[in-house]
Amino acid sequence: MSFRIGIDLMGGDKAPTEVIRGIRRYLDQASEPAELHLFGDWDAAKPLLDQESIPEAAYQFHPTKEVIGMQEHPTRALKEKPDSSLSKGFQLLAGGQIDSFLSAGNTGAMLVGSLFSIQALEGVLRPTMGTVMPKLNGGTGLILDVGLNADCKPEHLNQFATMGTVYARHILEIKQPKVGLLNVGEEEGKGNLLAQATYPLLKENTSINFVGNIEGRDLMSDKADVMVCEGFTGNILLKMAESLYDMAQHTGIQHPFLDRFHFENYGGTPVLGVRKPVIVGHGISGSLAFSNMIRLAEQMLRTDILTKMADEIAGTRKITQ
Amino acid sequence: MSFRIGIDLMGGDKAPTEVIRGIRRYLDQASEPAELHLFGDWDAAKPLLDQESIPEAAYQFHPTKEVIGMQEHPTRALKEKPDSSLSKGFQLLAGGQIDSFLSAGNTGAMLVGSLFSIQALEGVLRPTMGTVMPKLNGGTGLILDVGLNADCKPEHLNQFATMGTVYARHILEIKQPKVGLLNVGEEEGKGNLLAQATYPLLKENTSINFVGNIEGRDLMSDKADVMVCEGFTGNILLKMAESLYDMAQHTGIQHPFLDRFHFENYGGTPVLGVRKPVIVGHGISGSLAFSNMIRLAEQMLRTDILTKMADEIAGTRKITQ
Repeated sequence: MSFRIGIDLMGGDKAPTEVIRGIRRYLDQASEPAELHLFGDWDAAKPLLDQESIPEAAYQFHPTKEVIGMQEHPTRALKEKPDSSLSKGFQLLAGGQIDSFLSAGNTGAMLVGSLFSIQALEGVLRPTMGTVMPKLNGGTGLILDVGLNADCKPEHLNQFATMGTVYARHILEIKQPKVGLLNVGEEEGKGNLLAQATYPLLKENTSINFVGNIEGRDLMSDKADVMVCEGFTGNILLKMAESLYDMAQHTGIQHPFLDRFHFENYGGTPVLGVRKPVIVGHGISGSLAFSNMIRLAEQMLRTDILTKMADEIAGTRKITQ
Repeated sequence: MSFRIGIDLMGGDKAPTEVIRGIRRYLDQASEPAELHLFGDWDAAKPLLDQESIPEAAYQFHPTKEVIGMQEHPTRALKEKPDSSLSKGFQLLAGGQIDSFLSAGNTGAMLVGSLFSIQALEGVLRPTMGTVMPKLNGGTGLILDVGLNADCKPEHLNQFATMGTVYARHILEIKQPKVGLLNVGEEEGKGNLLAQATYPLLKENTSINFVGNIEGRDLMSDKADVMVCEGFTGNILLKMAESLYDMAQHTGIQHPFLDRFHFENYGGTPVLGVRKPVIVGHGISGSLAFSNMIRLAEQMLRTDILTKMADEIAGTRKITQ
């Protein structure tokens, strides 16, 4: 069966041009491409689709008239613009006509759509969003949450650890991902109240390989693969990490390691813990990012990662109850 | 009047050699050197003092027999080792025989000593510790808290903003320091519960020049000079920033901007909000760091910064009550 991947052609600063170029890149690399469902303005998209020689057989087009702007209020925009590419995508995702949806548009609207159009996986208290973090040894870590949940409880962080582990295993292909609790010191008992209360839960969580506390200096090291924190700290770290690429540009430093902080190349970040793969792209995503987002959606579907996540969450709950 | 600055000769990984070399550097640069009070093992220190040609007139020696190790439990060590260089320093600071104390020894013991041997400034709810943050434009910002207070309330962050402003004005010599609240978005109303509740307090604080929320990407920018957050996030950011220097070493990147993240050169960070200047040095401080720590203590005494801080705190309290 071919997976049906929904793509918002109108989302992102460089839409629709770069989205369609990204589709071209994806098609060039895919041996058995997924069934692409494109949402957007037909008149704007058609010439670009032709220009990139995207065959009509490669996609189904869902014409929409409205566009949700990057600065619009998420909930209001989704409600008031049902005929926007972003709203329509979620409608079809919720209705089962597509299997996954991706957009580099209004992040807030993507999150609201993920949380309310489609539901959380059974047992998941709070869906989360992570971001990859380049390691000095060439590997890749995952930090979560990076902003979906600014205030968290220990049991939320514990579930992030489980979901992050499943993601790291099946998408980052790390066999036995090491889980670290981001904290202010190495020893058990260190930290703010949240970290102190989270540590024992992680220690008892049999779905993960908990290696203890990690510190800010360990983010680029190999100490942990999955790094867990609440979304306030995580979001600030993510944006600081992103700024390292800007720092390199500004200072003229050229080095492949710093290039890896150019996050818009990665192709967006999935919302974890909802029933279907939703990929949220960076506003300034280019064609490489879009092709990577399509591949990520495909990979998440192919590995059936959400079922695996639900199973692990169910297992964790059974043990902790 | 000459200021009396206490120096722990035994604190730090490279003590006492680098401490004494740092004293030499300080004396070489000072036109009217402060009165130095040295705490430590006389037999270990004497040959080094001679080797560095430190004249006997430049210091008073307070011989101590014990040393508090870097890994010892702070409260217990201070209690059980009253004849250690670190304990003795705080005893004389509390007793008024010295005006300031600095050490690169056990950080926890330095903090416990600061909080319990000498008291908080009147009206200060929670003393704090900040760290400087290099800016891309060549300037220097200040982040606080960076670990003294892992859990905070809005009124704590509000006082950190006031104390940070006084420090930035008189020590970093920024005339009208811009204060930013570290947050996950720019707009008022963004953030976790703490940040949301802190924003209005900062807005009403007439002792500071509040410029609104700043994000992780703004840390190295000129958006704010004083960046306020709780000590959990701040500590992780500090250690991540420190690791940028290690990253440069590891990858072989050479650039003056990254050299500025070599924090042990800065010469320690003061505890703000206590009645006397206490400077906490980095464990791996070298002679440059120690000479800078002495100069910082001197500068804090010369500018009478703690009185200014107490005045501003009193003003803020009057307004908010």
